[in-house]
Amino acid sequence: MADKMKRIVLASRPKAVPTIENFRLETMDIPVPRPGQFLARTIWLSLDPYMRGRMNDAKSYAAPVEVGATMEGGCVAQVVRSDHPGFDAGDIVVGSFGWASHGISDGTGMRKVDPSIAPVSTAVGVLGMPGLTAWVGLNDIAQAKVGETIVVSAATGAVGSMVGQLAKRKGLRVIGVAGSADKCRYAVSELGYDICLDHRACSAARLSAKIAEAAPKGVDVYYENVGGKTVEAVLPNMNTFGRIALCGMIAWYSGENIDKAMSMPAAWGAILRQRLAVRGFIIFDHYNRLPDFLAEVAPLISNGEIAYRETVAETLENAPSAFLELLKGNNFGKQLVRVGDYSG
Amino acid sequence: MADKMKRIVLASRPKAVPTIENFRLETMDIPVPRPGQFLARTIWLSLDPYMRGRMNDAKSYAAPVEVGATMEGGCVAQVVRSDHPGFDAGDIVVGSFGWASHGISDGTGMRKVDPSIAPVSTAVGVLGMPGLTAWVGLNDIAQAKVGETIVVSAATGAVGSMVGQLAKRKGLRVIGVAGSADKCRYAVSELGYDICLDHRACSAARLSAKIAEAAPKGVDVYYENVGGKTVEAVLPNMNTFGRIALCGMIAWYSGENIDKAMSMPAAWGAILRQRLAVRGFIIFDHYNRLPDFLAEVAPLISNGEIAYRETVAETLENAPSAFLELLKGNNFGKQLVRVGDYSG
Repeated sequence: MADKMKRIVLASRPKAVPTIENFRLETMDIPVPRPGQFLARTIWLSLDPYMRGRMNDAKSYAAPVEVGATMEGGCVAQVVRSDHPGFDAGDIVVGSFGWASHGISDGTGMRKVDPSIAPVSTAVGVLGMPGLTAWVGLNDIAQAKVGETIVVSAATGAVGSMVGQLAKRKGLRVIGVAGSADKCRYAVSELGYDICLDHRACSAARLSAKIAEAAPKGVDVYYENVGGKTVEAVLPNMNTFGRIALCGMIAWYSGENIDKAMSMPAAWGAILRQRLAVRGFIIFDHYNRLPDFLAEVAPLISNGEIAYRETVAETLENAPSAFLELLKGNNFGKQLVRVGDYSG
Repeated sequence: MADKMKRIVLASRPKAVPTIENFRLETMDIPVPRPGQFLARTIWLSLDPYMRGRMNDAKSYAAPVEVGATMEGGCVAQVVRSDHPGFDAGDIVVGSFGWASHGISDGTGMRKVDPSIAPVSTAVGVLGMPGLTAWVGLNDIAQAKVGETIVVSAATGAVGSMVGQLAKRKGLRVIGVAGSADKCRYAVSELGYDICLDHRACSAARLSAKIAEAAPKGVDVYYENVGGKTVEAVLPNMNTFGRIALCGMIAWYSGENIDKAMSMPAAWGAILRQRLAVRGFIIFDHYNRLPDFLAEVAPLISNGEIAYRETVAETLENAPSAFLELLKGNNFGKQLVRVGDYSG
């Protein structure tokens, strides 16, 4: 155990697209747990699109990260020393330690992970927040049913790759939209998508025509992760009484595509004429569904029925650059940072 | 009974805001009912915002009116001659005879009206399509609950005036938005709104601030009839898990305010961050709810517990100009055309 810990703080708020200068690495003494607390060292840090929102000083569903404070984030960590009756040294836990090599916790919001089920990194991936997001969005929010057609944006991302596989298992026709030919090939060959369309290769109108061709019976469910031209392309293809699970809009988080966005009246008109139900959701409201999710999905991960892919950045120092690549869509599958070693 | 009938046909499709030249009056022989049909003469023609959509040659939930065909519309009519076992001369019926003085029907989509309950004009108003729209939107679509706060746009219109009164009876705090000081006074003094705000008097930002002041606990339900700056003003005031019943967007039907519309990413962001449920609906999908609606609301109309106001244009020839005024919001309450006499 080193004597010092590292953390990445928000150095300044981004004006539009974040840059490496918005982050700063700091070194400090490792804190000492008080009675009722434990100290853990981070093994895996999860990088996720929602973190972009925390960098702004704007009203949102969660408070922004203050300038000078540790960037927020979910981690898989190992307990180093414990003065908490529910946690022992050596335990693997998942929780929000932020972009940091170590953290102190009183157990609030912490969950122990059984390393025998799957690699512990999955606790922030397919068996963690992104997996739960996929499962809740597909089942509870969009209420997808056998025989329907779904379009999944960011089809190979941490959330999308799970949505696609779960939808396929449920008996839907599954159409992916992703940001490269490589990702599209992977979506079809490894994740079981019926077809995957590369949005980088075409305009909104062209993408819309391709979706129409891929969905001869129309689109019943759209799992929305991205905004941008993908939602513009999907909307005209939605069937009457279709549902949109609005989970994210990464194309618009930093304002870079807003001037090219479809018009609000066009979107509102589609929702009205096609009698769509659009429902925004934030997974932090749905953690009561975690036990049901794990009961269904953990066995599928254990026995290899669900595929997943991870992009790993090595060491905490590289978290900011890996996050900037994630915002550009240059990751492939779940984006992780290896902060510490694990020998399970 | 005259020997000729009159009808208004769609003379040409409007390019943007419709004009009087888009309509044409025609005179023709009164048709003769065949076996299984009846002939009726129109008493009241209902004018409604949805008719604007029928004038366009665009994909929508219903087929457009063809150029040269009778404009579509709901009517209260009296059976003149019947060769249909279910309808007798003298019966009052409500159904879609269009903008015409007479019509032939085989009974499909026709409903007999009991003139003892209320003035027969209410069969296309508070006890007809607009009333049902209000009731379904409030109860089934928005699922409004006691103690919540609702904003109703077009607050004194045929639909909005009913939404406001039903919401008040349900125990909600009811905030109206309407297009003149007169309408706002009427909303509060006659319809029982807690407050009504005049959108013509202010910008979207100012209207938003006024709504915030009028809704100290935030807005749980928005009954959306208009689009335009009203939805822009309401969205930031919506509470987490708020619901929007998207019923119409009259401000955007003819393209005249689209360049001033809020941005799609701003709307999408509000839906996501505030976890809103937005549901578009068209009342023609919900006529199975008519019996429940009538059971609840007809007594309230009969005994005067629900107020309503009608603007009457005299004679079928004036239907086009009355419709153009309706699109500008210059009507007050339900817009009717008196096509024929009624002595009940």
